[in-house]
Amino acid sequence: METLTVELGTRSYPIYIGQNLFSGAELLQQHIRGKQVMIVSNTTVAPLYLEQIMNMLAQYQSASVVLPDGEKYKNLDTLNQIYTALLENNFDRSCTLIALGGGVVGDMTGFAAASYQRGVDFIQIPTTLLSQVDSSVGGKTGVNHALGKNMIGAFHQPNAVLINTDTLDTLPDRELSAGLAEIIKYGALGDEPFFEWLESHMSQLLQRDVSKLVYAIKHSCEDKAKIVAADERESGQRALLNLGHTFGHAIETAMGYGNWLHGEAVGAGMILAAELSEKMGWIDKKDVTRLQNLTKLAGLPVNYPPEMTAEQFIELMMRDKKALQGKIRLVLLKSIGNAIVSADYDESALLNTLNEHHQPSTGH
Amino acid sequence: METLTVELGTRSYPIYIGQNLFSGAELLQQHIRGKQVMIVSNTTVAPLYLEQIMNMLAQYQSASVVLPDGEKYKNLDTLNQIYTALLENNFDRSCTLIALGGGVVGDMTGFAAASYQRGVDFIQIPTTLLSQVDSSVGGKTGVNHALGKNMIGAFHQPNAVLINTDTLDTLPDRELSAGLAEIIKYGALGDEPFFEWLESHMSQLLQRDVSKLVYAIKHSCEDKAKIVAADERESGQRALLNLGHTFGHAIETAMGYGNWLHGEAVGAGMILAAELSEKMGWIDKKDVTRLQNLTKLAGLPVNYPPEMTAEQFIELMMRDKKALQGKIRLVLLKSIGNAIVSADYDESALLNTLNEHHQPSTGH
Repeated sequence: METLTVELGTRSYPIYIGQNLFSGAELLQQHIRGKQVMIVSNTTVAPLYLEQIMNMLAQYQSASVVLPDGEKYKNLDTLNQIYTALLENNFDRSCTLIALGGGVVGDMTGFAAASYQRGVDFIQIPTTLLSQVDSSVGGKTGVNHALGKNMIGAFHQPNAVLINTDTLDTLPDRELSAGLAEIIKYGALGDEPFFEWLESHMSQLLQRDVSKLVYAIKHSCEDKAKIVAADERESGQRALLNLGHTFGHAIETAMGYGNWLHGEAVGAGMILAAELSEKMGWIDKKDVTRLQNLTKLAGLPVNYPPEMTAEQFIELMMRDKKALQGKIRLVLLKSIGNAIVSADYDESALLNTLNEHHQPSTGH
Repeated sequence: METLTVELGTRSYPIYIGQNLFSGAELLQQHIRGKQVMIVSNTTVAPLYLEQIMNMLAQYQSASVVLPDGEKYKNLDTLNQIYTALLENNFDRSCTLIALGGGVVGDMTGFAAASYQRGVDFIQIPTTLLSQVDSSVGGKTGVNHALGKNMIGAFHQPNAVLINTDTLDTLPDRELSAGLAEIIKYGALGDEPFFEWLESHMSQLLQRDVSKLVYAIKHSCEDKAKIVAADERESGQRALLNLGHTFGHAIETAMGYGNWLHGEAVGAGMILAAELSEKMGWIDKKDVTRLQNLTKLAGLPVNYPPEMTAEQFIELMMRDKKALQGKIRLVLLKSIGNAIVSADYDESALLNTLNEHHQPSTGH
């Protein structure tokens, strides 16, 4: 088992990564302070792992709530189901919530923990590759609004993150690819050697080679933990983690939550960011090609949905959290491994980038 | 104009108290950092003051959202109307929310500010006596759940609190009395001289003598600011501010939100707390009588609703945030001006206190 720490002073917490982490109960129990534990899961993950987790909590007053599965349920109504379960069980301020599932379960459970009785403890047990390398680490929690993704939420750090790589055995291929998009992101935004490593080992990752997956997860979590430790509330460099996300959120909102997986939208969004960066003369065509090839190799779409127009993109991106004072700030590339946050790009270059993608005849 | 400061390090903020505070715009503007301002009000207060506030914000991109009035609308659905208004206006992270109304508007606006894009600025302009002396100060924000009051929320401090006592001119008598309940509370829990002052000046307060109201508001805010500064997140003495509230929340929940005003429920709750304290031998009968008389003088009910039973009370109180590990913690009195938080009372004395009130023939 590998252990990392997210360094945040009194709110520091460990990330455990390894196989077979559901067999002993101690690892989990040492991070539970009270006697009441609520496990939050969904209809896909609960049948696979809920019983194992419940068995680890025999001496606690434990209960569970199973939510419908999918990004389209990541909203206030579903969140309310968690509050209702907590209140029906008379859970008090000393309780702990456990998120057992992917990013949607983690984000909603985290926000429920941030807001139930103005804040209780929670633990992340992410079961998808995407949530293991991204959303379970760093304390961003929240739900979507019909008019924008993750618009309602809080910063609330977990007590611990347990990444049991055995859970990847049951993950569909499409979701494995979606997780790889976020892993590629860490290379592209600030870690060129890792990007190269991914170019060499992508096929092994797709074949679910355990040691390679553990390496990629650990490396991704390390990269993220460093950035979060330096800038917890995203006043500066943490925004780099949004590479591909402003474009990606627009895709997710336009297509209806869940029709494009978050990782898929981020993958296509990173390529748009790279192409705009190329148009600005910041990176070479070959950098764009490297990113396109690696994304394709990971089994991800490289073009945005043909249903969308450039105008729709821009309207949706204006609503994104990264917009400020009416200008869309984007994470763009100076090279592979060197991203910047900028509103200092040509708006016509942005429009051209989007328009070229919109015409299937351009060869993308 | 009087000015106090709530001392919370980098999150310190001023409370301004006085007449005529809506005539100049500077006081408000100095606390707005960005260009976008959303005023949140309700159908009762907006017709009276919204235009004045909008006029103070001519050079900002300002908008407003008017919510239905009443505690029964303090829920996630109404909260969502605030998010929708923010998103429809493309408001970004640099925006400021202004709460213009009573405690319900303040609590919901504060929680919207705590959670919109994971946290934006807000300013409190409380227009009821109760919100001026209590809920607008201290950063407790949130909404109710069908199963319990204020169960969903966050600690989120405002940038400033503007208390314009002119707004009390339009306040119904019943709401004035409800505000007086919270004012009496400060005396009862930790300020015997203030309690005495209230005994001497209650009739002037009911006649809305401005200088007496300003004194009572300022004194209450000072008492609260001191406690909040010492214990922002209620790990200790801040819990004393809940005198009467555990009983009171049970009344509000049982009767349906809004049928008993919060202050009315707190007034009746304080008397129950005093009577239980007397049964425990901690205070004298004459202290209970003083509290009953002052509460009555303020125009408040002194008995809980006859529809409620002792058993229902206990069930509802078990769900309150002050319950911990299955035991109801209550704020009780050692004397007028000296409250303690305790779970160390006789459960049969609690049951007797509630049962005696339930029988109209006991003379209460």
